[in-house]
Amino acid sequence: MKMFQEIIALKEKRRGFHLITREIIQAMPGINEIKMGMLQVFIQHTSASLTINENADPTVREDFEMFFNKTVKENDTDYQHDYEGSDDMPAHLKASLLGSSVIIPIQNGRLALGTWQGIYLCEHRDFGGSRSIVVSAWGI
Amino acid sequence: MKMFQEIIALKEKRRGFHLITREIIQAMPGINEIKMGMLQVFIQHTSASLTINENADPTVREDFEMFFNKTVKENDTDYQHDYEGSDDMPAHLKASLLGSSVIIPIQNGRLALGTWQGIYLCEHRDFGGSRSIVVSAWGI
Amino acid sequence: MKMFQEIIALKEKRRGFHLITREIIQAMPGINEIKMGMLQVFIQHTSASLTINENADPTVREDFEMFFNKTVKENDTDYQHDYEGSDDMPAHLKASLLGSSVIIPIQNGRLALGTWQGIYLCEHRDFGGSRSIVVSAWGI
Repeated sequence: MKMFQEIIALKEKRRGFHLITREIIQAMPGINEIKMGMLQVFIQHTSASLTINENADPTVREDFEMFFNKTVKENDTDYQHDYEGSDDMPAHLKASLLGSSVIIPIQNGRLALGTWQGIYLCEHRDFGGSRSIVVSAWGI
Repeated sequence: MKMFQEIIALKEKRRGFHLITREIIQAMPGINEIKMGMLQVFIQHTSASLTINENADPTVREDFEMFFNKTVKENDTDYQHDYEGSDDMPAHLKASLLGSSVIIPIQNGRLALGTWQGIYLCEHRDFGGSRSIVVSAWGI
Repeated sequence: MKMFQEIIALKEKRRGFHLITREIIQAMPGINEIKMGMLQVFIQHTSASLTINENADPTVREDFEMFFNKTVKENDTDYQHDYEGSDDMPAHLKASLLGSSVIIPIQNGRLALGTWQGIYLCEHRDFGGSRSIVVSAWGI
């Protein structure tokens, strides 16, 4: 079995949903050497997350931001944990609703994504800073 | 390490939540050869998803459809992305809330699911068509 | 490739969100032998779940319980599946919103979690009993 692993630092992105498929593939040249395998992308934070969704129309990503802001309210007076601001606890909740990792099959040296699938970085903080991502690939 | 990978096309299913555990196991005979390992099931679409839940009572799956329809509204006028119809953007959002893959341990040639666990295909479109699934297994 | 797998029984926990990082690491001494690899934690139940979130302030975990109780209502008269009580169907829904597994990279014999990340057991039933968890690790 081959196994590859890299840590990359994604430059700070504004709050919202961002396509990072290209950055992930560039960070992991070992994908090319795997005929049959898996790729995992893991975010080392609790106020940002990763998901897979539509890679073409930018309004999809804007609608994601709108939906998650409506569904996970900022100023719920029932929050106890709020000392980093009104985006603090909602960011933690959104991170768990979406998840801290995505895992994608590799076939013939390429990610086996569907035509319309891309990897999103979901930045839930107003000023989240750089984000640390671990990319792992394994296979034969 | 052994590694197996198959792409299967699931026949069109009506909108809702559907048990597909048997179809997944049949698609991957290599599971039998793995004493200790993992299975991943990945959907190559952004308007359908996969999850693991209760495998016995069909009303659980109907309650899933009811809950997700209430939680992710169809006619929110704040959606920008709606040109494929009122089920378009809600399908993308449900897909990311539930996720594009499930991953299950393999023990002694069988999926190590709990007694009540089954794999659901979650079809979020009114007419989603056939769905393409990548099934991967690896282990010793 | 090395591969390790253990089933552990977590003692009954009260309804809510609980840090279990230490219990998982103790259950899987093989992590130490893996220089580069992956750990997966899988729960064999459909009314409890696993997620990764903030490992320090206990009020974060209380806010999780508050948020999920508000978002997935107990007494929605539209539920058909309710014969195990008012926490029955909401537990299934929360389990799929959060997910049945977490998967974390291993680097140099340790979990590559971020500073603030911990593994949560999410107990969605009032009396869930002991929970069975499969822990798997693989790598080189």
